[in-house]
Amino acid sequence: MVNGTIPKSYLFLQSALTEENPFITTEQVLDWLQERNKKVKVNIQRVKFSDLDQWKFDEGVTVLRHITGKFFSIEGINVLTNFGNKQEWDQPIINQPEIGYLGIITKEFNGILYFLMQAKIEPGNVNNVQLSPTLQATKSNYTQVHKGKKPTYLEYFVDRSIAQVLLDQLQSEQGARFVRKRNRNIIVKVTEEIDVQDNFVWLTLGQLKRLIRYDNTVNMDTRTVISGIHFGDSNEPIGGRESFSSSMLLSALDSKRGMYSFDDIISWFTQLKLQYDLTVKTIPLSSLRDWVITDNEIRHVNNKYFKVIAANVEISSREVSRWCQPLIQSAQEGLIAFVVKKINGVFHFLVQAKLECGNFDVLEFAPTVQCLTGNYRETVTGGLPFLEYVLSAKKQHIRYDSLQSEEGGRFYREQNRNVIIEAAEDFPVEVPENYIWMTLNQLFYFIKFNNYLNIQSRSLLSAVEFI
Amino acid sequence: MVNGTIPKSYLFLQSALTEENPFITTEQVLDWLQERNKKVKVNIQRVKFSDLDQWKFDEGVTVLRHITGKFFSIEGINVLTNFGNKQEWDQPIINQPEIGYLGIITKEFNGILYFLMQAKIEPGNVNNVQLSPTLQATKSNYTQVHKGKKPTYLEYFVDRSIAQVLLDQLQSEQGARFVRKRNRNIIVKVTEEIDVQDNFVWLTLGQLKRLIRYDNTVNMDTRTVISGIHFGDSNEPIGGRESFSSSMLLSALDSKRGMYSFDDIISWFTQLKLQYDLTVKTIPLSSLRDWVITDNEIRHVNNKYFKVIAANVEISSREVSRWCQPLIQSAQEGLIAFVVKKINGVFHFLVQAKLECGNFDVLEFAPTVQCLTGNYRETVTGGLPFLEYVLSAKKQHIRYDSLQSEEGGRFYREQNRNVIIEAAEDFPVEVPENYIWMTLNQLFYFIKFNNYLNIQSRSLLSAVEFI
Repeated sequence: MVNGTIPKSYLFLQSALTEENPFITTEQVLDWLQERNKKVKVNIQRVKFSDLDQWKFDEGVTVLRHITGKFFSIEGINVLTNFGNKQEWDQPIINQPEIGYLGIITKEFNGILYFLMQAKIEPGNVNNVQLSPTLQATKSNYTQVHKGKKPTYLEYFVDRSIAQVLLDQLQSEQGARFVRKRNRNIIVKVTEEIDVQDNFVWLTLGQLKRLIRYDNTVNMDTRTVISGIHFGDSNEPIGGRESFSSSMLLSALDSKRGMYSFDDIISWFTQLKLQYDLTVKTIPLSSLRDWVITDNEIRHVNNKYFKVIAANVEISSREVSRWCQPLIQSAQEGLIAFVVKKINGVFHFLVQAKLECGNFDVLEFAPTVQCLTGNYRETVTGGLPFLEYVLSAKKQHIRYDSLQSEEGGRFYREQNRNVIIEAAEDFPVEVPENYIWMTLNQLFYFIKFNNYLNIQSRSLLSAVEFI
Repeated sequence: MVNGTIPKSYLFLQSALTEENPFITTEQVLDWLQERNKKVKVNIQRVKFSDLDQWKFDEGVTVLRHITGKFFSIEGINVLTNFGNKQEWDQPIINQPEIGYLGIITKEFNGILYFLMQAKIEPGNVNNVQLSPTLQATKSNYTQVHKGKKPTYLEYFVDRSIAQVLLDQLQSEQGARFVRKRNRNIIVKVTEEIDVQDNFVWLTLGQLKRLIRYDNTVNMDTRTVISGIHFGDSNEPIGGRESFSSSMLLSALDSKRGMYSFDDIISWFTQLKLQYDLTVKTIPLSSLRDWVITDNEIRHVNNKYFKVIAANVEISSREVSRWCQPLIQSAQEGLIAFVVKKINGVFHFLVQAKLECGNFDVLEFAPTVQCLTGNYRETVTGGLPFLEYVLSAKKQHIRYDSLQSEEGGRFYREQNRNVIIEAAEDFPVEVPENYIWMTLNQLFYFIKFNNYLNIQSRSLLSAVEFI
C-alpha cells in the first residue's frame, strides 16, 4: 500500500517534468555511457551448433536447449490463424516460460524521484552498453539466492519492509519471437540510504525520456518498465503553452475526452478476439517447413524473417567472461510507428489490434504500423495500412524518430526504427476495423491491467516526453 | 459508442433499483417458469459410450468427440503445480475452444431498462427450465447462419445499426472443468419494436436479482452476464438508510475508500502469479492415472470429484427432440461463499487468488471459499481457510443463501450452495497472503478488464441486490 500524502502519480509526473539533476546531467550520462563502452570489449564469434558449449539439440532435433534445462530453449511451432494474409506457417521460437524481473529502484531527493539506472553490457547490443533497469533477473537468477549468487539489489524488490512498491505489472515480450513470455515490470521506492554501485546512476524520469531520443541508449527493458507509469487523471484544462509535449501531457492526464469509452474499446477488442483464431502447435525443429537447419544456423529458405545463430560470447572489462548461447538475428530492421491526432482537443493514438503467434491472448494493442522493413518493401503494394503514410511523412510531422534495440540478451544487434507522427489535419478519423483511437490516459489504464499493449507499443509510449 | 445523454451505468442502476414491472411481476415469473416446467418432459437416460449416437472415442481412447469434430470434446490432462496441497494429478476435461455468445437484449420502457429473458430448457438442469439470456449460441450456432439455422435474435448482437452495445466482455467458465474456455458476455439495447417470442419476457434488473434469491431459477449464463454490469462511480455519501442492500450499493459505487488501490491489488496478484506455476499437458484419456473408463462412465477410482457420463436426452414440449451427449456429473454439491466486512465504512469482499487447471492465466479472483462439499468434509481438519467460519456462520450474518445450477448444457444436475456472509465485528482484517479485501466497485472494474474474476465469484456478485 502506498503511504504518505503525495500520490505516487504526482511523484512520477514531477520526475518526468524534471531534467535538471545535481548528480549527473543528461550530457554527462551520454559521455559516461560512451566511456563505459570504450572500456569494454565484446567479442561475438559465430560458431557451429556442435561447438555451442552447454547447448544441445536433443535426439531427433526437436529442440535446442541448455544441458541443465534452464535459461531458455529454441523450439519449433506450427501456426494456424485467420488473421492477415498468411494463414499458416512454421517457425522457430524462443520458449522461456519463467517470469523474469525487470525492476527499477527509485528514491526521492529534494522532493524529486530519481531512478537507479545501470550501464549494462549485453552481448547482442549494437553498441554494447545501454541504460538498463536496476535489476534484470531471470527466475534462475533470483531463486538461486541460497547458492550465494544473489543478483545485486534483489532484496529491495523482494522485501516489502525496505521498499514500497510503486508499479508492479506482468507485461508481454515480443509475440513473434517468444511463446507467451512475460516479465514482472516493477518499480520500488526506498527511503533509506542505498549503496550506489560502480555502474549505477540516479536519473530523473525526464532525463530517461530525453535519453530515449538517442539511438540505442536506453535498453528495451528500461523502456517497458517506464512505459507502465501512470501519471494520474485530471480534467482540468492544461492551458498556456501549446507545444507538442504539453499536448502529450494533456493526453496522458485527460480522463474525460476520449473518443471512445473503456467499454467501447473493450467491446471493439472482444469482437476482434471472437473473429480471429490462433492455434499454435509445438513441432520438432527438424520438421519446420520452409526452414533449414545448417551447421551454424536455423534460417528461412528465402532468408526471410530471422535466423537462430550459435554464438560464442566473450566480454572483457575488468574481468573476462565467456559463454555460449543461441541468439536471434533479424533479417532486417523493423519499423514501429504511432500516428497521433488531435480529436476533441486531445491527442489520440491510432492503435492496432495485432495477432502474433506467441501472444498470451491472441491479440494485443500494437502501434499503428509494426513491420520488418523487408516485409514492408514487399508489401507496400499489398497495402499494409498507414505504412505509406508513415514512410512519406513530412519532416515537420515527425515528432520522434530514433533507432531502438531489442533485448540484447536474446537478439543479435536488432534495432527497430521508432517513430511518432503527428497526423496532418486531413488524416481521416475513420479507420479500418482493426484500428481504434485512444488517448494516452486510456493506454496507461490498459497497461495497468496487464497484457493489453504489446512491447512495441510500450517502447513507443516510453519515448513520449512532457517537457 | 454510447450515444444520448443518460449514462448507461445510470440506466443499469435504475433498473437494478426497480422491481415493479407492468408486464409481469416477480411472483408471476415464478409461476410462469413453473408452468413451463410442467409442460416439458425431460428424459435423460444413461447409456453406454458405444450407444452414444454421433459421439466416439478415437482409436487408442485418446479423446471422446463428436463425429463432426464440432461442439466439444472430452480430453485428458496431466496437471503440475505448486499451488495447494496436491501438486500433480490427471483428470478428464472439456475442451471447447470456441468462444460462445451469452447475450441479453435490453430496451427502455418509460425510462426503465428491461432485460429480455428466456425460459429455457437444458438437459442437465435440476429443474429443467430456468431464466436464460436472450441468446446462448456456440460458434457452430452463430456461424451457420447461411444454412438457415440462425439462432433467434442473433441479428441484434451482430448488426450495430439496430442495437447499441452496453456491455461486451470475454469471461471465463469453470477452470476445473474447461480448458481455457471463454464466452462473450454481451448486453445490447434496442430502441425499435421487437417481436417478443413465446418463451420470452421483459424483466428489470431488480427482478432478476430478486429471482436469484430462489434456488435454481436464474441460470449460470444469465448470472455471468449481469455480474459484469458496472453501476458507475460516486464519491457522494449515500445517506439515510443503513440496510445491507443500501450498504452494498455504496460499495458498488464508492471509488475512493477501497482498503487497497488498483495498483496495490495488481501488485499482489502479480506477486502471486510469479509464485505459482501451472503446467497442463494433454494426455490420452486411456492413460489418466487414478481414473477408470468403464462402459458408461469415466470416473475417479475413489469416485471423487466428478464423472463423465453418456446421456441419451429426450425433451418433449410441443415437439420432441432427441440427441446424445456426454455430461459431467459432480460427485457432490459445492460451496461458494463470499465473506464481506465493513472497512473504512464500505463493504469489502474477501477475495481469494485461486489456481485452477483450465484457467486462462494461472490464477483468477475467486470467492472466499470455493470447494466441493466432499472435498471440504475431508479437508475441514486440513484447514481450508475460512471454511469453518462460513459453515458455522450464525443465521443473522447470512445475507444470501441459495442453490444455483451450473450450465445445464454440460453439467448434469450440478448445483452449488451460494452464500454471502456479513462478517462479525471481530473478523480479522488481516488475512493470509492469497487473500485480499476489495470493494464491489473495484471488483466491477476488474470484471470490465476481463479474465480477472472466475465464474464462481461472478455468480455470487450477480446475486448482490441494492433494494
